[in-house]
Amino acid sequence: MLLATDLDGTFLGGDPQDRLSLYQAITAHPDIQLAYVTGRSLEAVMPLLADPTLPQPDYIIADVGASLYHGETLQPIQSIQHEIDMLWPGETQVASALVDFPDIERQDVPQARRCSYFCSPERAADPELKKIAESLNCDLLYSADLYLDFLPRSVNKGSSLLRLVETLGIDPEQVLVAGDTLNDLSMLTSGFKAVCVGQSEPALLDETRGHARVLHSDSPGCGGIIQAFSHFGFLGGQGFAAETRKATEPGQAELVIVYHRLPYEEHRVNGQLQRRRPRSPNGIIPTLLSFFADGRKGSWVAWAEHEEGEKFDTHTAVDPEHYKRLTAARIPLTKEEVDIFYKRFSKEAFWPTLHTFWERAIFNEDDWQVYLKVNRDFALRTAQEAAEGATVWLHDYNLWMVPAYLRELRPDLKIAFFHHTYFPSADVFNVVPWRRQIVGSLLQCDYIGFHIPRQVENFVDVARGVFPLQTLERQNCAPRFVTYACAVGLETMTTALDTGMRTVRLGAHPVGLDIDRVRTSLAKNEVQEQMQRLRKELGSVRLILAVERLDYTKGVLEKLVAYEKLLETNPDLLGKVTLATICVPAAKEMTIYDELQAQIEQAVGRINGRFAKIGWTPVQFFFRSLPFEEVVGWYAMADVMWITPLRDGLNLVAKEFVATQGLIDGSGVLVLSEFAGAAAELKGALLTNPHDTADLAQTCYLALNMHKQEARTRLRELFDIVSYNDIRRWGDEFLAALESPQPESRLSGQAVA
Amino acid sequence: MLLATDLDGTFLGGDPQDRLSLYQAITAHPDIQLAYVTGRSLEAVMPLLADPTLPQPDYIIADVGASLYHGETLQPIQSIQHEIDMLWPGETQVASALVDFPDIERQDVPQARRCSYFCSPERAADPELKKIAESLNCDLLYSADLYLDFLPRSVNKGSSLLRLVETLGIDPEQVLVAGDTLNDLSMLTSGFKAVCVGQSEPALLDETRGHARVLHSDSPGCGGIIQAFSHFGFLGGQGFAAETRKATEPGQAELVIVYHRLPYEEHRVNGQLQRRRPRSPNGIIPTLLSFFADGRKGSWVAWAEHEEGEKFDTHTAVDPEHYKRLTAARIPLTKEEVDIFYKRFSKEAFWPTLHTFWERAIFNEDDWQVYLKVNRDFALRTAQEAAEGATVWLHDYNLWMVPAYLRELRPDLKIAFFHHTYFPSADVFNVVPWRRQIVGSLLQCDYIGFHIPRQVENFVDVARGVFPLQTLERQNCAPRFVTYACAVGLETMTTALDTGMRTVRLGAHPVGLDIDRVRTSLAKNEVQEQMQRLRKELGSVRLILAVERLDYTKGVLEKLVAYEKLLETNPDLLGKVTLATICVPAAKEMTIYDELQAQIEQAVGRINGRFAKIGWTPVQFFFRSLPFEEVVGWYAMADVMWITPLRDGLNLVAKEFVATQGLIDGSGVLVLSEFAGAAAELKGALLTNPHDTADLAQTCYLALNMHKQEARTRLRELFDIVSYNDIRRWGDEFLAALESPQPESRLSGQAVA
Repeated sequence: MLLATDLDGTFLGGDPQDRLSLYQAITAHPDIQLAYVTGRSLEAVMPLLADPTLPQPDYIIADVGASLYHGETLQPIQSIQHEIDMLWPGETQVASALVDFPDIERQDVPQARRCSYFCSPERAADPELKKIAESLNCDLLYSADLYLDFLPRSVNKGSSLLRLVETLGIDPEQVLVAGDTLNDLSMLTSGFKAVCVGQSEPALLDETRGHARVLHSDSPGCGGIIQAFSHFGFLGGQGFAAETRKATEPGQAELVIVYHRLPYEEHRVNGQLQRRRPRSPNGIIPTLLSFFADGRKGSWVAWAEHEEGEKFDTHTAVDPEHYKRLTAARIPLTKEEVDIFYKRFSKEAFWPTLHTFWERAIFNEDDWQVYLKVNRDFALRTAQEAAEGATVWLHDYNLWMVPAYLRELRPDLKIAFFHHTYFPSADVFNVVPWRRQIVGSLLQCDYIGFHIPRQVENFVDVARGVFPLQTLERQNCAPRFVTYACAVGLETMTTALDTGMRTVRLGAHPVGLDIDRVRTSLAKNEVQEQMQRLRKELGSVRLILAVERLDYTKGVLEKLVAYEKLLETNPDLLGKVTLATICVPAAKEMTIYDELQAQIEQAVGRINGRFAKIGWTPVQFFFRSLPFEEVVGWYAMADVMWITPLRDGLNLVAKEFVATQGLIDGSGVLVLSEFAGAAAELKGALLTNPHDTADLAQTCYLALNMHKQEARTRLRELFDIVSYNDIRRWGDEFLAALESPQPESRLSGQAVA
Repeated sequence: MLLATDLDGTFLGGDPQDRLSLYQAITAHPDIQLAYVTGRSLEAVMPLLADPTLPQPDYIIADVGASLYHGETLQPIQSIQHEIDMLWPGETQVASALVDFPDIERQDVPQARRCSYFCSPERAADPELKKIAESLNCDLLYSADLYLDFLPRSVNKGSSLLRLVETLGIDPEQVLVAGDTLNDLSMLTSGFKAVCVGQSEPALLDETRGHARVLHSDSPGCGGIIQAFSHFGFLGGQGFAAETRKATEPGQAELVIVYHRLPYEEHRVNGQLQRRRPRSPNGIIPTLLSFFADGRKGSWVAWAEHEEGEKFDTHTAVDPEHYKRLTAARIPLTKEEVDIFYKRFSKEAFWPTLHTFWERAIFNEDDWQVYLKVNRDFALRTAQEAAEGATVWLHDYNLWMVPAYLRELRPDLKIAFFHHTYFPSADVFNVVPWRRQIVGSLLQCDYIGFHIPRQVENFVDVARGVFPLQTLERQNCAPRFVTYACAVGLETMTTALDTGMRTVRLGAHPVGLDIDRVRTSLAKNEVQEQMQRLRKELGSVRLILAVERLDYTKGVLEKLVAYEKLLETNPDLLGKVTLATICVPAAKEMTIYDELQAQIEQAVGRINGRFAKIGWTPVQFFFRSLPFEEVVGWYAMADVMWITPLRDGLNLVAKEFVATQGLIDGSGVLVLSEFAGAAAELKGALLTNPHDTADLAQTCYLALNMHKQEARTRLRELFDIVSYNDIRRWGDEFLAALESPQPESRLSGQAVA
């Protein structure tokens, strides 16, 4: 059968529960074909196509009948379209014909093969207009004493639907038409079975009263369509009553954490999986776990590598002693899936794009399909775990598509998402071939968190290229965040959006640090000994420290070039300073980093070759991963901490340095890239532009020469921020923001026209 | 002397003419030192530092005295700052102390060493608060029954100014203090010569009445300061009365075009400059010239190469026959300046950044100084040419800094700017080390035009990271522009901003085509012959055509890779299609294009080597510039025009193809990158994502297989747009928009607090 339905007020209207039932039933019945028949143009339908909760149409009749498209390809339905195109004079012809009527104003909406204007009743009565319409071979419609329309002659929703049904060879008895306003009249009275849904325009009801095949439903929107299915005996005569919705049964967890990693580490030893305590480098996992310390029922959904034929536990206890009602819900992925989903695709396609390095992105449709499959698995498992109305907290870009699947399975859930990386503006993000699906999925969340306001605004920038969004709420970024003093600063940010379907709230939550972890490290004897050893080795040489991963986003090479310039232009520094870089190498299989590594090694060699003297090495470059405690020892000894990513979501290294120096009452100077998220939070840092070699060198020089009093004051301010906004406060504030009352939605359960 | 002045209501207030006089006098007198003394924090002062019309301060006393900075470096004035820092407990200490007072709400403004709250009078009377302040060693201030302030003890504007004057060793008799509200009282009564400017807070006037050294001026803002200069006998006892402003005398031109090129071409023949007709590739120059055809008095300001010692004409007639009152005003640049300004710096620093290829940008401070010098020359010449209240139309990013200089010289002018390239979002643009200066300059314009709404919004995104801007007006982009159907589409755009100092209007004006130029070409015999020759050579092989410049923005290589994939996956196309690319090489000195050219040549070789058969060449690559007529011949013969820039301001080639095919009633299919500005305008094109090889190949295949009827309809729609919105309409609409009435400014002559 074919359901041909108007959108606004009909297929997009009605009680939310009815809408959900109808949408799910259509999705579940591949034998129901769906045609959107709307006054909107294709452009204004496109946001709906990105909405994962709506069933996707097989056909779209747009522009009140003037445009017809295949739903999947969005290409015109050639034969029918051509007939209409032959009638239509073209919009600039209409505009030219109306050039002497400056009081007739074009409506500023997207349109094709149709021109709509605002026009006074007096002007609309002008016989000249009728003549123009005739000369253009157009129909002229005037309605509501305001709207004047030029349309291709004799084209309307009814005529186009008839042509479509005929072309497709569908049995007219197997067509159900639904609408609610006068522009649906032509299709409602085309002889098909039809329904005027509840709250239809009175004039439409008048015009269709007495038509045997037109049902007048009491139930608005989708409710009316459901009633019509039953009334006309579609779906085996019982309509949707016969449908037992195969809904996912709710689980037990009140809070579900969905993270790419389990809260413990699994290692394969002699072919057997063994567990050990997590060694999360940043303390996020312990913080997330801490929400279950009070005995809250919870699930932690994550993947685990699984070999064919091996026994697999879908559920394991996490730590019954500390979190007695927390379960790990494991999703089995093959090694190949892990490699594609996690190691290759995310790193090749999304990592560079998210960090604005779009020239380096590689997109592969097959990989995307694996990504979708894994995200669907995550959504299914989450749907099974979560209790009615539970909170689901999703983490990071590996799981972008989970909300789309999850919302459909479990509309009752409160879905929150936190982005752990940078998020770029539309200019950059739009290179992603699947941008519409990703945005459509994310807008199914109730709450989306980022580190800083700039990332929130960038997301809004991307989203409003896909959906018509209304800003419900904005907030000033100060005093928590920097406004005009850095590249990623902003004065105001959006905190709530109305998508037409739901309210999505947004927030900035820079991840905090676990200060105790630093404190514990500093208290260790071996760290104290290491510090003494370093102090002795350095003697009077001042230490510039860099701690980073090998990644093009980190600006490792740019920093070396700037350091060379610094030594070149300030010979007084020769023999007096040393740059120590602790650079964590990339995993061996990440060959894309090989070239960068070679360039870095070459630069280090060049600088040392050029400037080194007996007993003094200008650059000490450690290409290895050091234990956290040892890094803390380095932090403690640094005179200048030089953190210069070209782009960074936040940068926790900056906070680790501040915490270390704060705890030892030090006076090290933090020089921080103004393109790191942390720059918007860490007032007291010296900011630098890593895209400008001269500025990099100058700011480092300034830091080396900073008065100790000033350095101490800056450090105190920084430590104040880092210790107050710690990782615990990050988690608490995120959950509190998610659970705080929503701002009033301007439109609830209604699509924006 | 030192002028220490409050900002809002004082230095930023008063009659616009007074403000201008004071600002110019300060700039003209290097012996006047300037200190901003304000309640704002440094962050909120930063927008003012980017405003080229304001004299830059030598010192900034911010946060009502709690912060002191050097104006140039923005580094703290160490000795004084340290004393204050020792008093201040830190903002999270204050926050922690107030944790039991949830009704005391933090004000969301940037602050340092100061915490401001909203608080009810009842709560403010709570003795507990006073205790907290004492324990924090803070002063507690409550005002206007609403504002509660924690400040470092005994720190205020007066105490900090006294310490500054003392530290600098300035004669206290050589200090003038200006203010208008109670928070200025402490500095107004510190014993310096002082002025309460007109419209001061009555309570301030009461408190200062009878102080012999405090003048109460009638004149508000800057007017009051000027009066005080004279009253106290600064500047040789006569104040500003003795100043004769060396203003630029207005010229004669009612419309001044400022373009990087002269409206005729100059060539050096045997060492002598000779003129010839311009061969502008896109018809912009003739259009701009046409505004002078009615005899309007005008100037065309442009540079001309000048060799030392050579005679140089600053003014030349352009074409006395057609534009009788138009003069070319030539700016002499040395060959080195031209090379740096035009060939090197603009291409290395700005071209890649503007097109979002920020990884390729190279910034050089010395080159920027040349750029500033050339821009200053352009501004000076323009100031001399323009009549009182004249319109100045500036073109493109080579001249970004002209508005800054020009506005100061000639506040009466109406300044408009049109960007001919893409304009990126803040994520990308902010890598430019001079972003604040550039934005500060552009916001001196009355009108800024871009090709499409996305570029307008990106500019707004950049600007609001530098200035506090109020949106005065937004407009829907439809029906003129595409909304959700392409990567550069948007539903709404900003059309007017209030900077606090002025209203800046914005508009989208995609450059149009000179259709007659295409028509003329088509009418030529040799073009007709060429078409017949091509038709014969091609036989039944279908022609996919690409016409582009050799540039990484154009996606030349990506297209070849996609073409290879197309042939690989569709063997039915072998022998049936050919890709002809006419690629205009870069100038020889542009060595940055060498690598790209090599990669392209290699790809072409590979594809032909892989697929070619006797009598059929898969790719024909022409690395040369062809005469426009000949290109038109190619356009006419193309079955598919494949335009795939990774990013493009507009792309006029697309319009040239449409015009050609439209004029010959053809059915060629336009496949256009959704990242070209033209994608937001040219409805009817098949859009493609050039960042996605699969989509590039698929869309090309779709185009090759498009039904002829559909192709014709699409072409008709496209030709309709291209011929209606031609180059003439572009120019007319831009000038009309510039001259239309301004929306009401929310604040006139007042800075945003």
